[in-house]
Order: sequence, then structure tokens, then C-alpha cells
Amino acid sequence: MVVEDASRRAARRGSGSPSALRRANTERLVAVLRYRGPSTQASLARATGLSPATVSNLVRMLAEDGQVVTGTTTANGRRAVEVSLAEQHRSVAAGIDVGRRHVRLLLVAEDGEVLAESFEGLPVGHSLQACFALVEELLDRALAEVSLERADLVGAGVGIPGPIDARTGLVGHAALLPEWVGLHVRQALEDHLQLPVTVDNDANLGALAEARWGAHAGVPDLAYVKVASGIGAGLILGGQLHRGHIGITGEIGHLQVSSFGQVCRCGNRGCLETVAAVPTLLAGLEASVGRTPRTSELLQLVQSGDLAALRVLEDAGLVLGQVLGGLCNLLNPAVIVLGGPLMPVGDLLLAAVRRGLERATTPVVAAATTVTLESFGARAEALGAAAVAHAAERVRR
Amino acid sequence: MVVEDASRRAARRGSGSPSALRRANTERLVAVLRYRGPSTQASLARATGLSPATVSNLVRMLAEDGQVVTGTTTANGRRAVEVSLAEQHRSVAAGIDVGRRHVRLLLVAEDGEVLAESFEGLPVGHSLQACFALVEELLDRALAEVSLERADLVGAGVGIPGPIDARTGLVGHAALLPEWVGLHVRQALEDHLQLPVTVDNDANLGALAEARWGAHAGVPDLAYVKVASGIGAGLILGGQLHRGHIGITGEIGHLQVSSFGQVCRCGNRGCLETVAAVPTLLAGLEASVGRTPRTSELLQLVQSGDLAALRVLEDAGLVLGQVLGGLCNLLNPAVIVLGGPLMPVGDLLLAAVRRGLERATTPVVAAATTVTLESFGARAEALGAAAVAHAAERVRR
Repeated sequence: MVVEDASRRAARRGSGSPSALRRANTERLVAVLRYRGPSTQASLARATGLSPATVSNLVRMLAEDGQVVTGTTTANGRRAVEVSLAEQHRSVAAGIDVGRRHVRLLLVAEDGEVLAESFEGLPVGHSLQACFALVEELLDRALAEVSLERADLVGAGVGIPGPIDARTGLVGHAALLPEWVGLHVRQALEDHLQLPVTVDNDANLGALAEARWGAHAGVPDLAYVKVASGIGAGLILGGQLHRGHIGITGEIGHLQVSSFGQVCRCGNRGCLETVAAVPTLLAGLEASVGRTPRTSELLQLVQSGDLAALRVLEDAGLVLGQVLGGLCNLLNPAVIVLGGPLMPVGDLLLAAVRRGLERATTPVVAAATTVTLESFGARAEALGAAAVAHAAERVRR
Repeated sequence: MVVEDASRRAARRGSGSPSALRRANTERLVAVLRYRGPSTQASLARATGLSPATVSNLVRMLAEDGQVVTGTTTANGRRAVEVSLAEQHRSVAAGIDVGRRHVRLLLVAEDGEVLAESFEGLPVGHSLQACFALVEELLDRALAEVSLERADLVGAGVGIPGPIDARTGLVGHAALLPEWVGLHVRQALEDHLQLPVTVDNDANLGALAEARWGAHAGVPDLAYVKVASGIGAGLILGGQLHRGHIGITGEIGHLQVSSFGQVCRCGNRGCLETVAAVPTLLAGLEASVGRTPRTSELLQLVQSGDLAALRVLEDAGLVLGQVLGGLCNLLNPAVIVLGGPLMPVGDLLLAAVRRGLERATTPVVAAATTVTLESFGARAEALGAAAVAHAAERVRR
């Protein structure tokens, strides 16, 4: 919890004296541990550029000092010393996922470990005040669980289900939460929580969580596609989250798939969302179910082999796949990750997406594209939000 | 002309002696001049981090030595000394645009100045050998014009009208020139020309030329869209050319715009190319003209106000605009640049594109997107190819 102490700051300004050098090396080692999590001494030497002997000396010193703990592990078939930061020296961020009907909050260490989690539903039509109050309550509840205080956090990342205009910081028109449109949400939350806050949209955060800690971490070109009340994508291109000119990217839900289709909430017509977002799937089952089912019912129907439920899922997957084939033509990502509330039947959705994609892109590109399901389920956005807060803190340091 | 001489190489290895330091500073200054072109002494000081006095001393020394020339200019309303590299110290690359029916070759200095140009048509159905022989002939002709030899060039960049698989270096299936499919074109041209060669597709090179030397140079998110026999886009995202996982990006010509449209040469159906590429526009005029007109005739008909010609141009623009609206939803570029043989009537095409785009993206994104015509006309790809060759040479240095 910890930000840097005076001696470290002094070391950065530092003279070239041996003790200043040792302090600078210590700082480097701790930074690597903070970023990578538990590491062997050999990998610490590689990552810091220090000699194995120096690393070994520093680790002994830090262990005596209670700043790191050591254990044994196996690396390349041999026993090795594994070093991790002592609990109280890990840097922790809050990752907050604000949905249309829920708030989820995680406390996340810099290596991706989740230290605490809290979750609460929100009634339909809740006020902005109610939402902010819930965020605060969940934050305090999670902090209490691990005996931390707000001042111990490096900051909070917040995901909201809507675009943010990067020029102004205001929530854009296409937000799913009308009350948020025009709000300077970072400012508002910083005032409310008295913490450094970073804000991004849900799909961008899902992409960041996958890119940093997911099954395909480190892949330079990755698209995370969230199919929920709306459909949005977060794009990691060339190893960076693509934010575009005014910060409104990945709006694949508003790609037109049918010239004279239904009018969309965005004001255009025949958008992907009007045919493949979850509410449309539910509405599609009205005739067979006798009323609009809930998402959990849709999932059960699919799992029990209900033909109508299988059909709406497959149709949505085909159209989504077609749009993602277009995304491949344009961006040629290595990996497309699907996420959102349909993931319990994700394998079936994925199969249809794959078929749609293959009809819309060239065989060589289709063959080179991995389409897969998300690594983190419902936690994806909160994890991504925590990743952003950690990254922001590294920039401030 | 010029790669670095022995003294420069020594300076790089250099001890800390005053003369080694001066040589290193000189090298830095020359590198900045090579990259930026003519600069004032004040801007050289800013770009190199050297003091104005040091810059002034080095410039005097280089001028006495004949390596730079100085003149006067006006900067911020005041007279200032402008410094440029002497001709024989400029770095020069060949930029070669290989089309389906032509080869264009430019010799380009690192600041974008075109020193020589040669162009020749190719008959339909020419062989690969004929094309390579023409490239060589044009290269030697241009070099002779400015009294240079191949050894004086930093290398050649080559643009071809088709995708290249970055994993293998082979020309991909969707190439417009069937004879090129499966060719390792870089290798083949290096063997033929005995020069370092870099290869990329035409749209990527158009984007690089715009991003480096065009009217919107330096814009981090820019799409260059070439409408010709095919339709392709080069994407500059976050300041870098986006190459994707296997190097096949910007294939907007193969985005599907009509589920049961015409079968495309790529094997899919209803691709943008089948409704908005130049051959489709020409075919659309068969009924009114009585035969398939040529591109030059189409342009004349449009300019003379022929209704059928205006209609096919507008329809193509509307559909292209709709696809580009989708591109905006996904990538939110600041600038979209249109290029290709329709540019003589580009204003009319642009108006239709703009209308199509506005119907397919949100108003806030549409308002933030500049759609414009290319800066370099027919030279765009050859210039981009030269830019790539210069960049490759900087990496090798």
C-alpha cells in the first residue's frame, strides 16, 4: 500500500554513491516484483539487468527487512528461489464495474491477484446518486475486508457502459444509461470518492484485462467483444488500446447490417445491436415462451435444447460473426475474445460466430484468427479498470 | 549518396574526447537535417537538444566543409538562418509503384523532395519478366537524369496492388495481378535490382505518404482509401501503420454490403468492390454509352454533367461512405483521405461519401471526422514506397 518512501525518492535524485546505487537497484527490483508478481531470482536478474549475485544480495537484504518473502519453486525442471513482495508492500487498485443494473468492485494487486470483491444489484431506473452511494459502500466494505484504507490505494478505475468523449471527458450520446449522458464522470467520482479515478468504457476495459492478465496476454492485436444489452468492442492494436481521435472506438454494435432494418437507439437503422444484442434475443422468444423471458431463462432454454432459443442464439452469432469478419478484413487481429452474459452458452454462440466470420473474410485471414471466450467472466471489466488504475499510477510515479 | 563515413562510425563508438563529442554532435545535426529538411538554427537547437551557440558553431564548420548550405528565411516574423544539406549529402531512395498497367518510379530525398520521376505503361496481360525489366529500365533512366548510381541509393520501396502475407512475405490470394500470387516479391526484386528492397501494398503506401509528407502529416489516426480497380485502405493508428497479425489489413473492398449481391473475385459475395470499384462504375454505363467506357471517358461524362455518369458515381460514393461510417464506428480516425483515379471528380465523390458516412455513424463521430482528397495524386504510392525505404535505412543504420 505504500507509495514510495523518502529514501527511494532520494535515491532517484541520487548521487553516484554506493549506497544511492544500492537504493536505486532495490527500487528497480521492487518495481519489477510489483509489476510481474512472484518471480525467480534468475528472472529478476534478466528483468532488471542486474547480476545474479547482486539480485541475490538485494533479495536477502529485502527479506531481512520484511519487504519480500522467499520460497522455493521449480523453473526449467530445477529448484529455484521464488521472491514475492510482502503483502503490505504490494500496490493495490480498486477496479469498479458500473453496469446498468449492478456495481462490482474488486481490489486488485499489480500482478492481477484479486484481494477482495464486492457486488450488489441496482434497481431499474435507479438515480445517479444511488449508484454513487453504492460504489462508495462497496469500496468501504471491500477495504474493511482486507484491513486497508482509501489512502492505501493507488487509485480507482471505473468502467461504464457507454462511450466517453476524450476531448471533453463527458459521457457520449450512445450511453446505455441516459442519466449519465453529458456527465464528467471522472471528475464526479473523484469528488465523491476522494481518490484518483480513471474511467473507460466496459469493452475497452475487458480488452485491457485480457491483454494484461488473460489467456492471450501480450498478443499485440486483440479484439474483445462484449455482447450484452449493447454490443461493443475494445481494440488492442499494436500492443496499445486504440482510443481513436475523440475516444469513441469499437462501436461495432452500431455497424449497419440491414439497410431498412429496425431503428436503433443511436438514431441509425439496422445496427448490429438491433439484431444481435441480448434484448433482441429475448424479444425473439416472445412467441414461443408466451412472454419476454429473462436472460437466465434464455440460457436455460438453450441448455435444454429448446429449438427457438437455439435459433435466436445461432442467428445472432451468424450476424455477429459476419460483422467480425468485416473487422478482420479491416484490422486482422490475432485473437477475438467474446464476453458478456451469454458466455454460459458461449460455445454455441462461438460456433455460429465462427461460421458467420468465415463467410465474411478471406480464408487465409479466417484461418489465422483465433475466436475464443473470455478469461474472466463477470470480473473482466472490473479487472480491466484496476489495470488502468495501476497503469495511471505508474505514469504519475 | 553517402552513407556514413569512417569518422562518423568512429564517433559513435567514440571516447569522451572533445573531438569525438563534436563529431557525435555533427552527426546528430546532419541526421536531423536529413530527416526534416531545411531548418532554422533555432529549430535545429530544439531538435538536437544542443545549445544555440553549439549549433551555430557546428553549422559554420559544416558550411566551410561544403556539407551544408545556409540562407536566410523568416521565422515568427523575424529573419533567421536556414540550414540545408548540400545536394551530395542528402539521402535518396527509389519509390516504385507497380500497377496493373503501369510502373512509376521516383527518386525521393529524405525530406520528401522528388529529384527525378519516370513512368511507363504496361500492356494488359504482360508477364512478370516484362514488369521487372521495365522497373529496371525506369530506375536506370531516373538515376542517369540526376547523375546517380544504384550504389548511391539507400534502397528501393515497392508498392504492389495486393496483400502480402507478413508471415511468409508471399503475395496473397486477393492480389489484382494473378501472376504475382505466391511470389516472394521482395526477394525477387532484390535479386533483380541488387538493392535493399522493401515491399508493401498500394493502400498502405498511400497512407504512409499522407502521414509523412501530406496535408495531414502527423495526424495519429488516419485512413487512406484508394478507389481503383479494387478498393483498399491503409490505416495509420496511434501514429503507426497498422499491419495486423499476418499483414493483411484495410481490406475494405471485401466488406460485405449486400448479402445476396454479386460474387466477388475474393470468393465472397456482395463485397464493396462489386458495387463501388471503378470497373463496376464503367460497367454501369454500358446501357447509356452503348459499350463499356474507359475511366477517362467516365471522368469526362461526369464533368459534362451526364446524368447516368453522375448517378453511378454518386451511388458508389454513398455505399463507400456507408462502409467508411462503419470504419469510423470502429476506429474513429481524425482524417479519411480518398485517393485513386476518380480524384479528378473527387469533389463529387467526396460529397456522396460524406452523405453515406453520416447515415452510418453517430453525429458526434461524423462531425469529428475530416474526409478529404489525397495530397499527391498519382505519385502517392511511389512516395509512400520511398518513405518506407528511408525508414528501413534508418533502422539499418
